[in-house]
Amino acid sequence: MIEKVAIVGTGLIGGSIGLALRRAGFGGEIIGIDGSQIEASTALSVGAISRIGGFDDATSADVVVLAVPVMGILDWMQRMAQVAGPHQLITDVGSTKLAICEAAQTDYNGEGQARFLPGHPMAGKESGGAALAEASLFDGATWLFTPVAEETPLEGAWRGWVAKFGARTMDLDAARHDQICAWVSHLPQMVATAMAAMFEDEFAAEPELAADFRAIGGRALREMTRLGASPYSMWRDVAFTNTKPLAATLFALEQRLAHVRENLKTPELREEFSKANAFRKER
Amino acid sequence: MIEKVAIVGTGLIGGSIGLALRRAGFGGEIIGIDGSQIEASTALSVGAISRIGGFDDATSADVVVLAVPVMGILDWMQRMAQVAGPHQLITDVGSTKLAICEAAQTDYNGEGQARFLPGHPMAGKESGGAALAEASLFDGATWLFTPVAEETPLEGAWRGWVAKFGARTMDLDAARHDQICAWVSHLPQMVATAMAAMFEDEFAAEPELAADFRAIGGRALREMTRLGASPYSMWRDVAFTNTKPLAATLFALEQRLAHVRENLKTPELREEFSKANAFRKER
Repeated sequence: MIEKVAIVGTGLIGGSIGLALRRAGFGGEIIGIDGSQIEASTALSVGAISRIGGFDDATSADVVVLAVPVMGILDWMQRMAQVAGPHQLITDVGSTKLAICEAAQTDYNGEGQARFLPGHPMAGKESGGAALAEASLFDGATWLFTPVAEETPLEGAWRGWVAKFGARTMDLDAARHDQICAWVSHLPQMVATAMAAMFEDEFAAEPELAADFRAIGGRALREMTRLGASPYSMWRDVAFTNTKPLAATLFALEQRLAHVRENLKTPELREEFSKANAFRKER
Repeated sequence: MIEKVAIVGTGLIGGSIGLALRRAGFGGEIIGIDGSQIEASTALSVGAISRIGGFDDATSADVVVLAVPVMGILDWMQRMAQVAGPHQLITDVGSTKLAICEAAQTDYNGEGQARFLPGHPMAGKESGGAALAEASLFDGATWLFTPVAEETPLEGAWRGWVAKFGARTMDLDAARHDQICAWVSHLPQMVATAMAAMFEDEFAAEPELAADFRAIGGRALREMTRLGASPYSMWRDVAFTNTKPLAATLFALEQRLAHVRENLKTPELREEFSKANAFRKER
């Protein structure tokens, strides 16, 4: 049923989808489309795509996977809507879903229009690029869908491939997706970025601090700032399309940190540790 | 030169010191002293200590390692000062050093007094207990010392064992130690605790959220809240003895998060990511 897949954006996620398709036994064509010739060539050289293609390939593929940052997905959705046909399934891997679902409801899934299935694999690394792509990236990960229309056989076939990637699929409402992702993904990212940026400013103010940090900082520091390496290009679009939920979680954490700060010497601190211990036990 | 070591507090760090001594070829006695009979028995059963002892053993050991939380260390320092002799070295593994160094300067290192060498291995786990102790816990870790007096041969011998544990030793000023540890260790701990406690409160307000968190949360969430499992008993003492530096770092992060929140849609966010990227590149 699916013989030609076009992957728009052959970076870490797009490249890993190509590799996962191959590992799962997909025998058809995998076309890679990327604004960067270097990224596309890397994806080709690691075997994530069969060949490098262009816009025409996207309009002739059975499935088009939009694997670029959210604003890029919205642009591609608009371009594709003009030319894609009802036999085509367009899907995406964007980190926020409400803006994408709104666009999908206008331009897709209607009479004579291409199908659109919004998706979001909860997998990634702090650095991007096809060179880091892995066939096993989605093993054991949750692949979220926020469907906006009844499922078609072509969608069912795509969901089947996703399951063969080793991912668990889960459907949920787009607004709830964005709310929960603000808590579990976007807030942790912004905290790691803020903490790493703050340390960088401290280094600028006192250069020899950098050496002491390197010598003394252990796993806690590494772990809490690892996501600081994440690219702005992707997170700008998350911040732009999930502003309110993200701002609310940030504000809540600011208040929580102030509460901890004001209670460093009171029994309230015991309460915070006890709640945090309980959260970790449940996981 | 060192034939009898007493370890006060046979939990994760104390137990690991016993195991590391054995792995490094220490052939003398290792006495474990712990308020909890269960902890002491566990340490004995994993081979971290030769036998369970009491206060008398501490006064006759060549080296006494205080491996309890900071307030407990201060208590033991006071008790030991009355009875320990100049042939004995007392050292500790406390997470803050200024309060301990102040106590050491009063009651130790003088004529006829026992020696005290404040120490702090930058190693640990989010959960404590002798059952988790490992001979390799200090492999590649930095073991900080904040000496308050000239080095004696006995101190040199202890430093030699620490090096044989696989740790890199580093001397620094106690106030600077506490300042840097506030940044690289105490702040990350409090952020993880605050974040996990906040999520726990969200779960209480909306129980079905817990299931979605479990399904959707990935590495970012796990990593940013891992330290939420850390015990209050240890961190209460850190908060109590390093209040000002810790409060300052918390306040700085609160302001930084507010800055991020107010700039989710402005180019300032690019600047934050760029600084965070630079911090991670240096590490």
